[in-house]
Formats: sequence, C-alpha cells, structure tokens
Amino acid sequence: MKFAATIQIMPRPEILDPQGKATRLGMHNLGFDQIDEVRIGKLITLNLEAESEEKAKEIVEESCKKLLANTVIEEYSFSLRQLEEA
Amino acid sequence: MKFAATIQIMPRPEILDPQGKATRLGMHNLGFDQIDEVRIGKLITLNLEAESEEKAKEIVEESCKKLLANTVIEEYSFSLRQLEEA
Repeated sequence: MKFAATIQIMPRPEILDPQGKATRLGMHNLGFDQIDEVRIGKLITLNLEAESEEKAKEIVEESCKKLLANTVIEEYSFSLRQLEEA
Repeated sequence: MKFAATIQIMPRPEILDPQGKATRLGMHNLGFDQIDEVRIGKLITLNLEAESEEKAKEIVEESCKKLLANTVIEEYSFSLRQLEEA
C-alpha cells in the first residue's frame, strides 16, 4: 500500500525562535504592525510504501525521531493518507 | 479581533527541491528505503489583530506575497482561526 505523509515540525513553545523573531521584525518594518508571535517550522511531505497503515505510522514516527525532527528543541505531528494504487 | 494564522509554504511541484532530495538520501542511508518524493517547505504560525476576518485574510495574503513566500518558486496556503478575546 502507498501512503502520503504530511509532517509538521515546530520549535517547542518554550524554545526561542530567532528566525520567527527576525521575520516578525521584517514584517513590522514592512508596516505589518498587527502581526505578532511569528514561529517558523518545517512542513515535509513524502510518500512511502508499507504493508499497513499501522506500519506506515511506525516508519514515519521513526524517521521523525531519527532524522527529520530534533526532538530536544522541536515537536512534530503528522497525518497519513492512503494513495490510490496505480 | 485576534486571529491565529497557519501558513504552509511549499516548493512548487515543477521546481527541484534539493533539500528534499538530500533528506530522501539520508533516509535511504538510515534504511528507510520505502520513503520517496520528500519535499520540504515551511510552516509558519502567527497571531494578528484585525477588524474582521476579511481584513485578516488580506493581511496574511499580503505578508505571504511580500515577505514569507517567494512566489516564483514557492506556493502558499493558509488557514485562519479566531482567538478568544482575553
């Protein structure tokens, strides 16, 4: 079975986000004073092959922990969608 | 009114994504051979103050075009949620 995964990775709430801070400053400089609390994370999409949805979840979970997210400073969540077989 | 916006920015489908390619390679090296078509974008959350949802949409749309996304190589989408007044 083929699945498409969408993975969201954000800096943990207690962690400073300098990239977000810089972006907020840039926005204020452009006149967007109404904008606040900018935080920047990653959005990752990928396809994978697995025997079952259970197994697909395991693979995505493990790849988040081992490679995609730095769990000390980031938190992740993901959703899976089964793709039609061609 | 206060709103929370979640903005998703991804490389356009026709654009090569070297970061995604490198990540896919890293995954294969870790033994995740089932994973393919990795694409990496940005996930941005922010709060903003606006008179109406219509106006809030305009502000987010404009900040995407002017600062957050490079619309030549990236496409964006966003969702808005009204926050409870404190």
